Amino acid sequence: MREDTFCWGIVGTGRIATIFAEDIQQEPGMEVTAVVSRSRDRGHAFAQSQRLRATVTDSINALTSSGNIDAIYIATPHSDHLPATMAALQSEYPVLCEKPMGLNVAQVTALADLAQKRGVFLMEAMWSRFLPAMNAFMTLLRQGAIGEPRALFADFGIDVPLAPDSRLFNPALGGGALLDVGVYTIALAHKALGRPTNVYGRARWTETGVDGHSAYTLAYGSGAVAQLFGALELNTPQQAVLCGTQGRLTLQAPFFRPECVSLTRNNGETNHQYHPVTGNGYGHEAREVADMVRRGRKEHPTMPLAESVAIAATMDELRTQWALQYPDEP
Amino acid sequence: MREDTFCWGIVGTGRIATIFAEDIQQEPGMEVTAVVSRSRDRGHAFAQSQRLRATVTDSINALTSSGNIDAIYIATPHSDHLPATMAALQSEYPVLCEKPMGLNVAQVTALADLAQKRGVFLMEAMWSRFLPAMNAFMTLLRQGAIGEPRALFADFGIDVPLAPDSRLFNPALGGGALLDVGVYTIALAHKALGRPTNVYGRARWTETGVDGHSAYTLAYGSGAVAQLFGALELNTPQQAVLCGTQGRLTLQAPFFRPECVSLTRNNGETNHQYHPVTGNGYGHEAREVADMVRRGRKEHPTMPLAESVAIAATMDELRTQWALQYPDEP
Repeated sequence: MREDTFCWGIVGTGRIATIFAEDIQQEPGMEVTAVVSRSRDRGHAFAQSQRLRATVTDSINALTSSGNIDAIYIATPHSDHLPATMAALQSEYPVLCEKPMGLNVAQVTALADLAQKRGVFLMEAMWSRFLPAMNAFMTLLRQGAIGEPRALFADFGIDVPLAPDSRLFNPALGGGALLDVGVYTIALAHKALGRPTNVYGRARWTETGVDGHSAYTLAYGSGAVAQLFGALELNTPQQAVLCGTQGRLTLQAPFFRPECVSLTRNNGETNHQYHPVTGNGYGHEAREVADMVRRGRKEHPTMPLAESVAIAATMDELRTQWALQYPDEP
Repeated sequence: MREDTFCWGIVGTGRIATIFAEDIQQEPGMEVTAVVSRSRDRGHAFAQSQRLRATVTDSINALTSSGNIDAIYIATPHSDHLPATMAALQSEYPVLCEKPMGLNVAQVTALADLAQKRGVFLMEAMWSRFLPAMNAFMTLLRQGAIGEPRALFADFGIDVPLAPDSRLFNPALGGGALLDVGVYTIALAHKALGRPTNVYGRARWTETGVDGHSAYTLAYGSGAVAQLFGALELNTPQQAVLCGTQGRLTLQAPFFRPECVSLTRNNGETNHQYHPVTGNGYGHEAREVADMVRRGRKEHPTMPLAESVAIAATMDELRTQWALQYPDEP
């Protein structure tokens, strides 16, 4: 391990931890040097399968006391983000926490406040925002390529067999389409259009009591509107289109991991920009976090904490309308 | 004119009348034999420009007393559909009336009731439904190609310069995106998913006080949902996608005049069916109306009056939520 290597500790050994570790392995100058799993066996199996030269511990406290890490990536189920991130921040380790950062706005606010109080870097892992095609999309929007944005359509639906114990369908683990996939559509709306003035939606319930799919409308003071959809039990086109007064921008499917942005002007002319994604797409984000941490910054301007709070508030509003509460929520 | 020719009288000389007349001219066995315009000059100019061998009159009563027509096509602005269609039905002439058939459910119901009372054929001119690709779409749906339908996405946005006197933007003429283009998305939802149990939406207002764009969610008892959008001031992709438990059907743009239906199965395999449209696409509908009228039927099963009433009720519900009233509405 070289001195200029940025060392990650990964908390959790599930699918997202694997995807992240794969990408870090491909990044020059970054390494996974620690793994935390409540089960040491699972932690060792994970480190071995990923060929990591990593310490394995069974708690964040054991990890942070071992040193040798520059930032911690929280890859546990949503319901564990609050305690895991709190433990990491309390030890003053920079944190990249999977989305959503908390189950609700209270949790996200508590984490943002703690990071600020401790002066530690914290960011929600909205990895899509760091992909080159997403940057191109935002650049075109800011340059006025489509005039004033007026309508966003985005859907993120996947078809997963219903499994009551899966974190996706389990209320105790913050399951449901809204928090797992809908959050990408909502984050895109917040990025492109800002914070909505009105939010309403409709959900279809699984047997386990979470939203198997849900549809949302975010409305803005400007008159702009976002028609969004997320699903765990339905394959959808996974496209995003932002229509403006002068044309429209399309994030070609899958919009949350875009490699092509298309600009269609009102005269019908279409131009495509291709921006390949490296690996699974998580390296772009990890590099940005490393850069911010090295520069001593406490937030990343592309995914600031205030926006994580705003996104959580939008999702809370929807769950309030649906009376969807997770266990232990007030 | 041969004896087996089906003779149309057209009321109105605007864009839709032109498009319809063009298609009728291309159809063997159908002719436009009469034109009604409040301005005889405009009526003659229309007949001449379309090379119609047609009588020109300045009222429906003058038309119906002249005989020589098998059905009347009402192509006036929405706000005139009620009186024009009433006059035609009272003379017991079969009527094809442009969509929406009335400004509100009261008007549509009054027309449906009158047609029934007089025993005369009446149909709302939802021409899209008669196109071969739309038939293929409905056949695939009914055959279970996508399993149980769960989510429909459809948008119909065009960018028209705001002109206060244009029927599109004039409240006195039933202007606004909902009644003009949104109605296609709503009619598709009613066709594919049935009558919704809940409807809600959001509009952006023009200076003239109608909806420049509007977004609607139609929710169904089954948990299915339709995310719809219409606009007069915004170009949108004009696509429709119906997602089901086993796959999805896409009506390729423009979905209201589709020539290609794509079936994507959950394994990712996609098949395209191409069904060319003749002319502007109105001949398909006109032939079906002629067939029904010749067989003495009073409605067409593809666009029955009960469904026109239901679609009008959905649009009324939205306008009630938005407090969008047209002049003279109670």
